[in-house]
Amino acid sequence: MCKGDDASCPHFELHHKKLKQDLNAERRGFLKSGLFAASGLAALGAGGISLVTPALAQATISKLPAQRAYHYLPANAETVHWGYFSKSLKPRIEVSSGDIVTIEALTHHASDDLERMIDGDEGAESVYLWTKEKKGVDRRGAGPTDPAKYKKGSGEGQGVHIMTGPVYVRNAEPGDILEVRILDCVPRPSGNPKFSGKSYGSNAAANWGFHYNDLLGGTKREVVTIYEVDIAGGKSWAEAVYNFQWVPQTDPFGVRHDTIDYPGVPVDHSLTNRNFDVLKGVRLPIRPHFGTIGLAPKEADFVDTIPPSYTGGNIDNWRIGKGATMYYPVSVDGALLSVGDPHASQGDSELCGTAIECSLTGTFQLILHKKADLAGTPLQELNYPMLETQTDWLVHGFSYANYLEELGPSAQSDIYSKSSVDRALRDAFRKMRHFLMTTKGLTEDEAISLMSIGVDFGITQVVDGNWGVHAVVKKDIFSARAA
Amino acid sequence: MCKGDDASCPHFELHHKKLKQDLNAERRGFLKSGLFAASGLAALGAGGISLVTPALAQATISKLPAQRAYHYLPANAETVHWGYFSKSLKPRIEVSSGDIVTIEALTHHASDDLERMIDGDEGAESVYLWTKEKKGVDRRGAGPTDPAKYKKGSGEGQGVHIMTGPVYVRNAEPGDILEVRILDCVPRPSGNPKFSGKSYGSNAAANWGFHYNDLLGGTKREVVTIYEVDIAGGKSWAEAVYNFQWVPQTDPFGVRHDTIDYPGVPVDHSLTNRNFDVLKGVRLPIRPHFGTIGLAPKEADFVDTIPPSYTGGNIDNWRIGKGATMYYPVSVDGALLSVGDPHASQGDSELCGTAIECSLTGTFQLILHKKADLAGTPLQELNYPMLETQTDWLVHGFSYANYLEELGPSAQSDIYSKSSVDRALRDAFRKMRHFLMTTKGLTEDEAISLMSIGVDFGITQVVDGNWGVHAVVKKDIFSARAA
Repeated sequence: MCKGDDASCPHFELHHKKLKQDLNAERRGFLKSGLFAASGLAALGAGGISLVTPALAQATISKLPAQRAYHYLPANAETVHWGYFSKSLKPRIEVSSGDIVTIEALTHHASDDLERMIDGDEGAESVYLWTKEKKGVDRRGAGPTDPAKYKKGSGEGQGVHIMTGPVYVRNAEPGDILEVRILDCVPRPSGNPKFSGKSYGSNAAANWGFHYNDLLGGTKREVVTIYEVDIAGGKSWAEAVYNFQWVPQTDPFGVRHDTIDYPGVPVDHSLTNRNFDVLKGVRLPIRPHFGTIGLAPKEADFVDTIPPSYTGGNIDNWRIGKGATMYYPVSVDGALLSVGDPHASQGDSELCGTAIECSLTGTFQLILHKKADLAGTPLQELNYPMLETQTDWLVHGFSYANYLEELGPSAQSDIYSKSSVDRALRDAFRKMRHFLMTTKGLTEDEAISLMSIGVDFGITQVVDGNWGVHAVVKKDIFSARAA
Repeated sequence: MCKGDDASCPHFELHHKKLKQDLNAERRGFLKSGLFAASGLAALGAGGISLVTPALAQATISKLPAQRAYHYLPANAETVHWGYFSKSLKPRIEVSSGDIVTIEALTHHASDDLERMIDGDEGAESVYLWTKEKKGVDRRGAGPTDPAKYKKGSGEGQGVHIMTGPVYVRNAEPGDILEVRILDCVPRPSGNPKFSGKSYGSNAAANWGFHYNDLLGGTKREVVTIYEVDIAGGKSWAEAVYNFQWVPQTDPFGVRHDTIDYPGVPVDHSLTNRNFDVLKGVRLPIRPHFGTIGLAPKEADFVDTIPPSYTGGNIDNWRIGKGATMYYPVSVDGALLSVGDPHASQGDSELCGTAIECSLTGTFQLILHKKADLAGTPLQELNYPMLETQTDWLVHGFSYANYLEELGPSAQSDIYSKSSVDRALRDAFRKMRHFLMTTKGLTEDEAISLMSIGVDFGITQVVDGNWGVHAVVKKDIFSARAA
């Protein structure tokens, strides 16, 4: 019998639909089954997470419902918003503090290879649907949606990430801190039977990359490399499959895209020249993580997903993967968490503009710390997105810590011409100083000495409008110090 | 009998001198004994060092003398130059390719605590000697030595590091590459019997630090923290002993130093207010390394040691420690290698201006690769200082790759006002692209994709005039690729 992969079968349509359902069910079942063994759960209430003092843990726990609920939020045209954060978006799901939620995240570069990353994947197909008549998700970006005003497409591509959510967290209010524990994070298998058991991602060396105006010989070109990504967990590396130079593509609505200027434009490979002799023998260990996890900010609506800010968003730090915990300041009621921009791997700087952009599914535990309980704890004044890994604490500096507030009404365009690594380092220095003084009660002089001899500053990204520098300090430095 | 530590003993002078001799002999014996077991030696000629192709290794080996010699270069007033590189300096020692040399390096911050870091240490005492009548080493820096022209002191403190050397490498000529393997690197024990078995370092949060104009409350102050550093190798961490705010110090020649503006000014602690309640319970794992290893450049004479350049120098990357190998382009005959600026630990960025500045003794193997043998190898076009560790390759980008050439006659002053992390990232990008294309034969498109998904860019330092960004790529990425 045809397994849904033989187009000559008289019942192909039926079989193929069944196959897709099976694949989706399998994906969900797999994730759920492994979930309750996740180590992160054990720590709840044990006070083991260092930024949460025992007293704060107690206060937070006392507010949890008696039972933790589990939720599954698939990615499809009904559950994603594309390219923007918005405080006015209707929540796709509502959870309580302590609940666990699995969230599918789709890469916005899947249409670079529809065959490997979209075909046969029901969720991706619904999101990427684009015919002469309609788009599965019309608005892509925070820009104009009036056809008289946009040139590239609805939303104008001012923001590019496919964000699943938002998730409404009950009782979350401005001033609270939302702790997000990443319990799991796995690549999404291809829905196409031809590529069964494999997963794929795209790396675009694009016009917004740091390299773009500095190519040898003074040429300008955008090059997309498609990678195969391990999903069995056995080999845990990615390998290039092919690359191609971007050539003008005309989208189904008839708009020509000379460069990569609007997300989700289907790439017609009859126009490209695919080169399969690429990066032979190069095997890259993967670092699956979410480039963009964030809360809706109160300052504006709609907000481009590209520049990161105090509510998180497109931080693009590859350490935000399985086992990591993020702390975000809540800006609007319900927190409104969204997840997107999944990456199989990225280097510090994300130099050419993108990572290995690869759909992932993550499982998160969301824990709400109420403002009233924060007094006297390290989280009291936290007004930036903070990362905790098993071994390190990290702060994220940006060229502008809160660009929407600092740059005013024209912030969303101005930010693209005002960033520098120097400014981001300045912000990272100030945040690390604040963290060391607040969390460990160091004096300013102690904090500054320690920053010079034991804190590493790295370049997170230089491609997201609001450039980033992270500062890393090892937890065990403080192991002998009273809290 | 007095062991040289009882000033009331009638033979104290004699005993004390004997003690100092014993300490020095012990220091040398200890290093030499452990030396020939050093693992680095085994790799010579095995082609195991990846940047050196088997053919190049063969060509290099064919030029080695039949026997490798061992040399010991102590640090004292006769063997150091303070604050500058110079192509016209008389070599302190002459070696052949393949030879091993142990070099003592003294920190230029030892006079922050003379009791712990100078007293009883014959070498340090001779270098730091400064009375009304004379200095052990008069010139400190690349500036004027005519008393009518300098204000702070001879050399004007335009360059600060105590450099041991130069080492003349026989047959080295411009265009060659000098490979420097760091076989060992150990902290120097205090010569003062009161602090026997311990080692110390100084961290100065100084006026050239990134933090200096950004202190809370708008104050300006310089703060020095003295650290105790493990030398037994057992605990392998550093702990703060005390700190003090810099107060004006008048040097033995009568010049008042309101800020830290000239190296080796003896700090009179009857004027300072020492605070021993500092960083309690904070234990920092140490990363012993050399902040400054470099060759004399041909472009100018004398050259300030502070800004790093294509011949190395003050790179301040904490990965340049035991087990690491550096590759430097030779600029002048004999290479003229000098070693200084020893650090017990530093973070990426060296934010406050210094590391834990702590005297160290290193053992190095120097291997000369001749220009004629480099054709077709990864070292062929190497015009920047390259680092190889056990697991990684690193390139070092600077705001100006060769600032002496790029900025012309006023380079040595201009460099201090022209640096940015953004520029250093640009240079690191270009160097990593060159490295990947040259060493592994990648195309530009392959190199750029790989840089974005698998190369980490970090901030080396922002306090050395010519700011630095390093790029790290893991060797094992290429394990399946044909060389």
